[in-house]
Amino acid sequence: MDFMKPETVLNLDNIRQALVRMEDTIVFGLIERSQFYLSPSVYEVDKFSIPDFHGSFLDWALLQMEQTHSQIRRYEAPDETPFFPTKLLKSILPPINYPKVLASYSDEINVNDEIKEFYINQIVPQVSCHSGDQQENLGSVSTSDIESLQAISRRIHFGKFVAEAKYQSNKEMYKKLILAKDVAGIEASITNSAVEQKILERLIEKGESYGTDPSMKFSQNPQSKVKPELIAQLYKDWIIPLTKKVEIDYLLRRLEDED
Amino acid sequence: MDFMKPETVLNLDNIRQALVRMEDTIVFGLIERSQFYLSPSVYEVDKFSIPDFHGSFLDWALLQMEQTHSQIRRYEAPDETPFFPTKLLKSILPPINYPKVLASYSDEINVNDEIKEFYINQIVPQVSCHSGDQQENLGSVSTSDIESLQAISRRIHFGKFVAEAKYQSNKEMYKKLILAKDVAGIEASITNSAVEQKILERLIEKGESYGTDPSMKFSQNPQSKVKPELIAQLYKDWIIPLTKKVEIDYLLRRLEDED
Repeated sequence: MDFMKPETVLNLDNIRQALVRMEDTIVFGLIERSQFYLSPSVYEVDKFSIPDFHGSFLDWALLQMEQTHSQIRRYEAPDETPFFPTKLLKSILPPINYPKVLASYSDEINVNDEIKEFYINQIVPQVSCHSGDQQENLGSVSTSDIESLQAISRRIHFGKFVAEAKYQSNKEMYKKLILAKDVAGIEASITNSAVEQKILERLIEKGESYGTDPSMKFSQNPQSKVKPELIAQLYKDWIIPLTKKVEIDYLLRRLEDED
Repeated sequence: MDFMKPETVLNLDNIRQALVRMEDTIVFGLIERSQFYLSPSVYEVDKFSIPDFHGSFLDWALLQMEQTHSQIRRYEAPDETPFFPTKLLKSILPPINYPKVLASYSDEINVNDEIKEFYINQIVPQVSCHSGDQQENLGSVSTSDIESLQAISRRIHFGKFVAEAKYQSNKEMYKKLILAKDVAGIEASITNSAVEQKILERLIEKGESYGTDPSMKFSQNPQSKVKPELIAQLYKDWIIPLTKKVEIDYLLRRLEDED
């Protein structure tokens, strides 16, 4: 999506198309993760004594990458949300000056800690192929986790664009709801159960199609590398609710900003 | 695969299964890359003036990752081949002491420069969705490239295991071929055209199945995100020949090592 054009990035059809494409990335990511062991060593805090660092190996690898990418302005893009916002490095390039699309407090809405928490504790144990560690794969595991975490984070924080688009399309209604701090009203305004149901059905199809070796498709018992129902469940329990949280948090503060 | 057990890692059925699984990773990687622009800025040497560094942003991001992962011994695993072998950092952990499976010179067989070259110059221009740069995506592009490069590198260097397994299964024949420096004979001994043809056919199926949104499958004109023929061509022109090069280079030196 071209983030230089507010009219493109706030067009609801474009947003929906981008969200559908992100599903593929998330499904691929989970399929990739499924070839590896649970690998608790990757997540255990201070399992490896890394000089001048307190945290897990995953945190460390993710931090290195965010610091590297912050130097070419990755986190200036409105659709990128860092896991370590206070530890980014200064860009070696002049700023991009994106046109203002989202409210000025938008960077402060960051649910990445919650994403990391459910990813590690809920998803990894269900997706990984085996318990325990496999020493030679810890690097690949962390790379795969970072891919999935970034894809899930991007999907969830895209709620900011949905929220802004909805706000723009009905300012009067939202002003009333926001002034009344009517969280339930805001939630109702951004919820479309039929669309949510369709997402879940599509995820099951994608899980089957992308997770099954085509040469197995006509065998008696074709098996997907990740249970398609699990991917749908992940969306139902975590991704969709957290996206709504982002949307609601964003809308609740919307009057702080000029129009 | 369990690299701690030589009998597992040199079993040709296990090797084949691993190679088939790696196809999925490579196909996913190319599908992911196809959402981004060509992004020449990522590959242009010294496009960004990074302090104390000479190279492209991709090189820099890849180097940061290899240095991070080298500190937890990623490149001690016999199936991981670094792009910057001379710039790795010392591990913060004691060595793993893998049992000896490959010959002792095995690390010296490294075709990653050739892989990077064909990936950037042959694959990216054909896979990317649009020419030019898209400033806000350079970080995502480099991450996607690193994923694909590592997957392709792992696939090609897996030829070392194939070569060692073949050597073990027919030492007398290989000793003669090696002493005679009979490259054509060695190449003939590791070539199975029927298997190669099957790989190409399977890749086309995978490209169609993984690259097409399932909800589009019954539409009039279902389109895969990456042309399946292109993926097969990539294997035919680059991955299979470079794998053979690795196998031949490995076998030609095999008598340097004890049995």
